[in-house]
Amino acid sequence: MQTNEKFFRSEGRSPSDLRPVRLTPGYVATAEGSILIEVGNTRVLCNATVEQGVPAWMRNSGRGWVTAEYGMLPRATLTRSPREAERGKVGGRTHEIQRLIGRSLRAVVDMQALGERTVILDCDVLQADGGTRTAAITGACAALAIAFNRMLAAGALKSSPLKQLVAATSVGIVEDTALLDLAYEEDSQAEVDMNVVMTEDGGLVEVQATAERVAFPRSRMLEMMDMAEAGIRQLLDAQREALKREQQERAPAK
Amino acid sequence: MQTNEKFFRSEGRSPSDLRPVRLTPGYVATAEGSILIEVGNTRVLCNATVEQGVPAWMRNSGRGWVTAEYGMLPRATLTRSPREAERGKVGGRTHEIQRLIGRSLRAVVDMQALGERTVILDCDVLQADGGTRTAAITGACAALAIAFNRMLAAGALKSSPLKQLVAATSVGIVEDTALLDLAYEEDSQAEVDMNVVMTEDGGLVEVQATAERVAFPRSRMLEMMDMAEAGIRQLLDAQREALKREQQERAPAK
Amino acid sequence: MQTNEKFFRSEGRSPSDLRPVRLTPGYVATAEGSILIEVGNTRVLCNATVEQGVPAWMRNSGRGWVTAEYGMLPRATLTRSPREAERGKVGGRTHEIQRLIGRSLRAVVDMQALGERTVILDCDVLQADGGTRTAAITGACAALAIAFNRMLAAGALKSSPLKQLVAATSVGIVEDTALLDLAYEEDSQAEVDMNVVMTEDGGLVEVQATAERVAFPRSRMLEMMDMAEAGIRQLLDAQREALKREQQERAPAK
Amino acid sequence: MQTNEKFFRSEGRSPSDLRPVRLTPGYVATAEGSILIEVGNTRVLCNATVEQGVPAWMRNSGRGWVTAEYGMLPRATLTRSPREAERGKVGGRTHEIQRLIGRSLRAVVDMQALGERTVILDCDVLQADGGTRTAAITGACAALAIAFNRMLAAGALKSSPLKQLVAATSVGIVEDTALLDLAYEEDSQAEVDMNVVMTEDGGLVEVQATAERVAFPRSRMLEMMDMAEAGIRQLLDAQREALKREQQERAPAK
Amino acid sequence: MQTNEKFFRSEGRSPSDLRPVRLTPGYVATAEGSILIEVGNTRVLCNATVEQGVPAWMRNSGRGWVTAEYGMLPRATLTRSPREAERGKVGGRTHEIQRLIGRSLRAVVDMQALGERTVILDCDVLQADGGTRTAAITGACAALAIAFNRMLAAGALKSSPLKQLVAATSVGIVEDTALLDLAYEEDSQAEVDMNVVMTEDGGLVEVQATAERVAFPRSRMLEMMDMAEAGIRQLLDAQREALKREQQERAPAK
Amino acid sequence: MQTNEKFFRSEGRSPSDLRPVRLTPGYVATAEGSILIEVGNTRVLCNATVEQGVPAWMRNSGRGWVTAEYGMLPRATLTRSPREAERGKVGGRTHEIQRLIGRSLRAVVDMQALGERTVILDCDVLQADGGTRTAAITGACAALAIAFNRMLAAGALKSSPLKQLVAATSVGIVEDTALLDLAYEEDSQAEVDMNVVMTEDGGLVEVQATAERVAFPRSRMLEMMDMAEAGIRQLLDAQREALKREQQERAPAK
Repeated sequence: MQTNEKFFRSEGRSPSDLRPVRLTPGYVATAEGSILIEVGNTRVLCNATVEQGVPAWMRNSGRGWVTAEYGMLPRATLTRSPREAERGKVGGRTHEIQRLIGRSLRAVVDMQALGERTVILDCDVLQADGGTRTAAITGACAALAIAFNRMLAAGALKSSPLKQLVAATSVGIVEDTALLDLAYEEDSQAEVDMNVVMTEDGGLVEVQATAERVAFPRSRMLEMMDMAEAGIRQLLDAQREALKREQQERAPAK
Repeated sequence: MQTNEKFFRSEGRSPSDLRPVRLTPGYVATAEGSILIEVGNTRVLCNATVEQGVPAWMRNSGRGWVTAEYGMLPRATLTRSPREAERGKVGGRTHEIQRLIGRSLRAVVDMQALGERTVILDCDVLQADGGTRTAAITGACAALAIAFNRMLAAGALKSSPLKQLVAATSVGIVEDTALLDLAYEEDSQAEVDMNVVMTEDGGLVEVQATAERVAFPRSRMLEMMDMAEAGIRQLLDAQREALKREQQERAPAK
Repeated sequence: MQTNEKFFRSEGRSPSDLRPVRLTPGYVATAEGSILIEVGNTRVLCNATVEQGVPAWMRNSGRGWVTAEYGMLPRATLTRSPREAERGKVGGRTHEIQRLIGRSLRAVVDMQALGERTVILDCDVLQADGGTRTAAITGACAALAIAFNRMLAAGALKSSPLKQLVAATSVGIVEDTALLDLAYEEDSQAEVDMNVVMTEDGGLVEVQATAERVAFPRSRMLEMMDMAEAGIRQLLDAQREALKREQQERAPAK
Repeated sequence: MQTNEKFFRSEGRSPSDLRPVRLTPGYVATAEGSILIEVGNTRVLCNATVEQGVPAWMRNSGRGWVTAEYGMLPRATLTRSPREAERGKVGGRTHEIQRLIGRSLRAVVDMQALGERTVILDCDVLQADGGTRTAAITGACAALAIAFNRMLAAGALKSSPLKQLVAATSVGIVEDTALLDLAYEEDSQAEVDMNVVMTEDGGLVEVQATAERVAFPRSRMLEMMDMAEAGIRQLLDAQREALKREQQERAPAK
Repeated sequence: MQTNEKFFRSEGRSPSDLRPVRLTPGYVATAEGSILIEVGNTRVLCNATVEQGVPAWMRNSGRGWVTAEYGMLPRATLTRSPREAERGKVGGRTHEIQRLIGRSLRAVVDMQALGERTVILDCDVLQADGGTRTAAITGACAALAIAFNRMLAAGALKSSPLKQLVAATSVGIVEDTALLDLAYEEDSQAEVDMNVVMTEDGGLVEVQATAERVAFPRSRMLEMMDMAEAGIRQLLDAQREALKREQQERAPAK
Repeated sequence: MQTNEKFFRSEGRSPSDLRPVRLTPGYVATAEGSILIEVGNTRVLCNATVEQGVPAWMRNSGRGWVTAEYGMLPRATLTRSPREAERGKVGGRTHEIQRLIGRSLRAVVDMQALGERTVILDCDVLQADGGTRTAAITGACAALAIAFNRMLAAGALKSSPLKQLVAATSVGIVEDTALLDLAYEEDSQAEVDMNVVMTEDGGLVEVQATAERVAFPRSRMLEMMDMAEAGIRQLLDAQREALKREQQERAPAK
């Protein structure tokens, strides 16, 4: 039934080009903070929930907690994947990704300023064409910022617990060439795959480089990091622009 | 954190008015048939997957099978609901709904014409404001029709296995008044709740009437069925219109 | 090994005849209220448990809760079905049935009069020949009445929380003929299948009509409801008779 | 709600008396072999299923397999126990008991004569007053014998694979006195608890003696074994009598 | 890949010889009490954990609780066994064994002297060559004694709750000969298999005799018990010796 | 009960010192390849299993597969952790680690030379003091090498599928100082944590750097990689030495 083989092709991108990025704030009205992020054909819905209280082991610490959950709709992919709820367990890949998202966001949140609240970032992939975990980090950070901005506006927080924005992208080596922001087709042929998570001031939050087929020298890694950092700067711009737009829509000029 | 209490209110609808309905074909490009259905604030993504083969107990019968799965994103609701994949099991409400969707669709498919294929209809609620199960049936039927139309166009089927369209809506009794197409607020106050699934030729596929608080007389039930049938005719129109649009976009006039 | 094919046959019933019904109160002595209900070859053991307290979301409301669980012994059927405990999860059909039983009983219980207690109705099918869910509702209501009567007699309740009795039966269309109280063989050939739950004063609690093969007109539905209502009146008589018997055995004339 | 406290009391039994035993063949008509066994207030429904084929690791061995499953209805006990299907797993006690039943039955079956068939013995406790595991063994053996007798009568077997009957009972030490066939109240006070499984020719199949509170000398154990063996002889008589009755009812004198 | 077939062979043992036994106290430094027990090639790591508090049903009783968990590393056996954590459930054999270990230890602990503490005995099989459950009991008792001795030394207990030591071994009938302490090869050929758990003063705590193929007369059972008791006396010596060694290492002569 | 607080302290190590490393080949005799690796107080048992066949999606590819499973005994840690088998699911941390081990080993195996076989590397932590995942990689690689060497010796393989050895260690930033091979105490205070997996020829297989508290500049990352690479060279030496020893013991000089 897959007559769509041609659908997923990169169209005229240079090796160091990101795919087109779009952030839609307020995609659902039910969540404290909501962003639909699109990176090429990859589409991830990121919703932030803020709940009172923290897990048992943190109680009475005066500090908050940030965690993430990640899911993929069964038909986000060209071939349908069984629903994890039906299988009765969360798979290893899902676990790995939601831990990565959670760590990345915790690195930029001031838990003292958050106070004894828990933020849950739900990242659900509606359509997958590579780079879902990095899109989820970039989108989740924007959703988190929106939730905090609204709490500030409502007086529920005195200062924003978000120290700075964080965004993420991937770089891979395909046929010995470094490529930024791999689409699915490219990713499946990559010899090396790297995810980089970086803050606005250029600090690294997470670097994960994996040899899919052959080990790589350190020089390769540095080249890939350069490419990733340039891409992340563009993603941080896109986040800032979306946050500004959300703020304007929420509180129109008098 | 819920500053949105006012969000979900019906705005000036008469008791027999449907909420605004919108069907977006091809919301994801990865599935054989895809529809995003919006009924007021309720938003359900319906994707049809067609796979070769049937479950073991149907093999060599020459007949196909149609089944459905239903899910709700954790933050589709004003208060976050835990993910079923995390809880490790599919809940009773989910089971009940996906069985209803499956039965409704099977009633309009000619399994002989389908041949030994399995169609899975994934209905995932992005935002919930009442009536998610009936929106899922209406959307899933459209997604199924698209998948079959594409298979016909590709020559994979000789005639469409879809005998006719099917759509569904709800009616409830609130403060002794029958209301069509309940939003969440209304549903939570309903004394009686009814779901009706009906085909284009007016045949009933499923009628489920439930006394939430007090038993109801048969006259009430007939009044509610009248209201439901009128609403379903409008939904069937919306389906037909969306299918026509999809066909035009797919095969533009030469 | 199934030499019993001839066992399950309807014997000379007219289309509007119920199968022979028998309610045995006190089948187990361990439960607050216990009924073995037999409808033809279908045999369901219904036990009512009354526990102090209610689920967390109802605490301090002063109101009670009624819920149901349904199970089928592996060899209740001609072909053995695997045990749900072994499979590690409750199936969709079981979920659907236990939700139906719970809703039906809640509709006739005055939760204020019950107070902060939870009643669990366990309905376990010892032998299955069609109509197990409706037999379970009819039996569970009688078990509930016995439990309440004993609590009244013991002074634990001031007035019975049971507003009126409720009973249920099925009707189906087989070869274009409406048949009351389908046995398994008949049910597997039915074109339409309907379950009706009704109270003593004729109020409807639940109506579920499903087209198994072809959609049905409303006139068919009304015909089936007539048949169901007549059958339910006989079931309500059988309940009243069993409750009287139980009361006499419990408190013999002095 | 437990007004039944006085219900479970032994009534004038001497230490070496069994409780009244009753075996009802054919309690359900759906199974190849079915027995309801009652030992005092303990009531266990034992059904034998014979299926073609054996587990993968036994294929092409020409030998059969016998296994058992054990369950307790939630309200078999004075206090309701949660359903294992709801908890999503089979508990340790259940596992231990069903392994014991399976081993006991396998010891008396000639697997070569059975051929590549699997027998599953479902033992479900309807009411529990102590000794459910030994009642299950005694009942399951009778259900197995009935299934084999019917297969012989139908020509599906040439000779019965059941080498001899097996039955089981318990003995305990309560206040330093050995008591045969403990009821629940007695069992909960027992210092030592022993289960014995024995064949018609007096061979031991399983002996399990457990110090619940204090270790016991070997002399005690021998005394308990004497008592158990005498009890088992009566149980074997009851089995033989029930099997004869079942045969007569099945094939009435011409 | 099993080139090790010859590895597991008994080497010149007489029928009544134990395999060489070695207890290594303090195998891990993380646990309150730790023993690595080796019986021939069988190697079990037994760790005792002492936690404050008891299960809910024992609270405010002033009494403690002792329980055990048993596991086998996937490659403890010649053929790899799937990990129970991966399968998502604890198997029947594991349940049976951990219940046996728990019961055996509880029989020798004075729960009043322990106070409201819970002791968990983790018994993990690193290499399996038969007799893992009896080795686990013997090792767990030594680990428990070490934990109590350390608590006494630290002043956390006034008197040891361990009333006396307990140890266990197996006996089997192979080709009509009784053999003490079966290795895996022997066990798989055994006609009868018996486990005996006994205290220092000769009291029996648990006797489990199982006919694997043919029922056995009582005389056989007595012969096997004699053999087991002699073996257990040697195991109790080994325990005492290890405990003395542990005490010396912990508190060296001044 | 934790009187061991002083146990886990690094003793006079300089920032760039590894802890003492010990590899014991053949720790269990049951596995094709077995290594007990000790890095300071961290102790991991690594066993390699070689099975015929590959997962379904690789069949008839002529290529093999390598995968890993990781577990921690409940009392490997100072505070007992519940058993994953009891909880019924594998946790996120476990999933993340076993995926890392599997990827690392696959990067150095020639799947064509392995042929359609599956290697499972079981890494079980007996005692945990930080760095269990990197110790597992280092130990698993040695276990894999042993398994392959034995297969070569037995003629089951023509050439070793292991292209080169791989080993791993961690580096962290504690109080602004880079420290090699963190023990648990140090790890819990680390601001940045990095795991590096490297081959004999200096190729990188996996680099994972995580900001636990504050983002880090790239210069820090390079400094940490230098330290890691020096440490890994020592681990590779230890592997080579252990493999030589294993070979000598297996095939003693004639």
